[in-house]
Amino acid sequence: MSVLLVLDLLGVAVFAVSGAELALDKQLDLFGVLVLAAVTALGGGVLRDLLLGATPPAVLKDGRFLVVALATGLIVFAVAPQLPKIVGPVRLFDAAGLGLFVAAGTTKALSVGLGAVPAVTVGCITGIGGGIARDVLVGVVPVVLRRELYAVPAVLGASVVTMGDGLHLNPGPTAAVGALLVFTVRMLGIWRDWHFPVGRR
Amino acid sequence: MSVLLVLDLLGVAVFAVSGAELALDKQLDLFGVLVLAAVTALGGGVLRDLLLGATPPAVLKDGRFLVVALATGLIVFAVAPQLPKIVGPVRLFDAAGLGLFVAAGTTKALSVGLGAVPAVTVGCITGIGGGIARDVLVGVVPVVLRRELYAVPAVLGASVVTMGDGLHLNPGPTAAVGALLVFTVRMLGIWRDWHFPVGRR
Amino acid sequence: MSVLLVLDLLGVAVFAVSGAELALDKQLDLFGVLVLAAVTALGGGVLRDLLLGATPPAVLKDGRFLVVALATGLIVFAVAPQLPKIVGPVRLFDAAGLGLFVAAGTTKALSVGLGAVPAVTVGCITGIGGGIARDVLVGVVPVVLRRELYAVPAVLGASVVTMGDGLHLNPGPTAAVGALLVFTVRMLGIWRDWHFPVGRR
Repeated sequence: MSVLLVLDLLGVAVFAVSGAELALDKQLDLFGVLVLAAVTALGGGVLRDLLLGATPPAVLKDGRFLVVALATGLIVFAVAPQLPKIVGPVRLFDAAGLGLFVAAGTTKALSVGLGAVPAVTVGCITGIGGGIARDVLVGVVPVVLRRELYAVPAVLGASVVTMGDGLHLNPGPTAAVGALLVFTVRMLGIWRDWHFPVGRR
Repeated sequence: MSVLLVLDLLGVAVFAVSGAELALDKQLDLFGVLVLAAVTALGGGVLRDLLLGATPPAVLKDGRFLVVALATGLIVFAVAPQLPKIVGPVRLFDAAGLGLFVAAGTTKALSVGLGAVPAVTVGCITGIGGGIARDVLVGVVPVVLRRELYAVPAVLGASVVTMGDGLHLNPGPTAAVGALLVFTVRMLGIWRDWHFPVGRR
Repeated sequence: MSVLLVLDLLGVAVFAVSGAELALDKQLDLFGVLVLAAVTALGGGVLRDLLLGATPPAVLKDGRFLVVALATGLIVFAVAPQLPKIVGPVRLFDAAGLGLFVAAGTTKALSVGLGAVPAVTVGCITGIGGGIARDVLVGVVPVVLRRELYAVPAVLGASVVTMGDGLHLNPGPTAAVGALLVFTVRMLGIWRDWHFPVGRR
């Protein structure tokens, strides 16, 4: 297994934790916990591949992604009473997962010939789509649309990857820099409690 | 018309009933009833074909599926006051529809070369996706994620179809056995009031 | 730029206004406003292209659609306090956008060989899908399913385009007539306050 695949599966696991946690909060049963874990972890990648016409989606073709997402959901369900203690590390891993997903999504979009604005959009959808699907499934207005400064790091990272592509830089290192930028800005936003403005009427 | 097509259209009709019923409960207008009937009946098949890259989806290419779904919605709208009487048979047909959709979806996923875990997943999405879309459209947390033991029969049936494929059994009889298993376990679950555990915090 | 493209971008802008307005009503932050503007404006076209297998979707391949949608969302966010004054014209443009989207969606569906009922369905999804996605994202039962007589003009217009195709008429003028019919019936419905019946139980 390559380092990239390990990181990818780690991102899947961390996103699955956030889905399973919300499912428990909403009193879903075990199946609901597994579905929300899988949707959160794989939804962004599925959406990306549907938009790019890369079917069946990569996360379905390789069964390991589903297995990791479902196993994570099962573990969260089993150890739920102990969970509140691990919020801090989860946010750290979640920021890492966001970075990996955004960088990978943007790179894949550019590789099929999308322009700059659409590529950034697809990259952000890859990173954020799973969380939006998670929230919509349980009737919650997606948290990313309301207050968490979750999108700015995604847009910045996707833009850096896209600019690197425009300058014909090596895609691998460019993606790494983009992912790191997402991670850093996201953690800064959490640390400094940054928020987006809300419109007034 | 083959027996399979008749069964398929029957499954569509039964799923359309459940969509139209929920639309009436939620005070939607006639158009809302027709949309919910069609989404519930065809949503799972559309999702399956999008994931497998089989576009346009089969239920769109053959207009009869849409016609049956919309006609069913119209009938439910017209006879709504008499409906509460027919809950029992609807559950029976619904279990049959679930079996047919899961078996057909799993078989199609295997035929395009998906592995075991992804094929089971696509089979379950085919059977359950329409009902999830129906509930999300009217702001209800999908019932299948909360308490109904709806997913276990789907997973079991899809697994049997997948195992049969792995043993190189004849796909037709294997699908029939899978569909029958879904139906039987689902009806047993209703009869014995089986539920999944809900996590505690 | 052709006249058609200008009209298309105008439709995108008007739909984006309705998305951004709802986002402001729901107290979303700036990012939420931009996402809802883009989803409302481009969601119907993305759904259409996913269903037809035309990936990446046209509105992603040509970055101008996204730029217009996002710029419109930004403008609405900035000038929100002045917005209530322009409800009338927005409804006018919205009806025009609906007509253009329905006519274009139906024409595209027919061009890939869909039959009459599926083509009308895809045409309506093109016109209405973005608004449904907008409402679902913020936890609102889609207004088009509840009371607004929004679907009848869409179905009529899509049917006229489909009939014109069946009679081998010139697609361009047929689409124009269909779009105009949608617009006219929609404005009549607003003016005369037409509603669909709601079912009783």
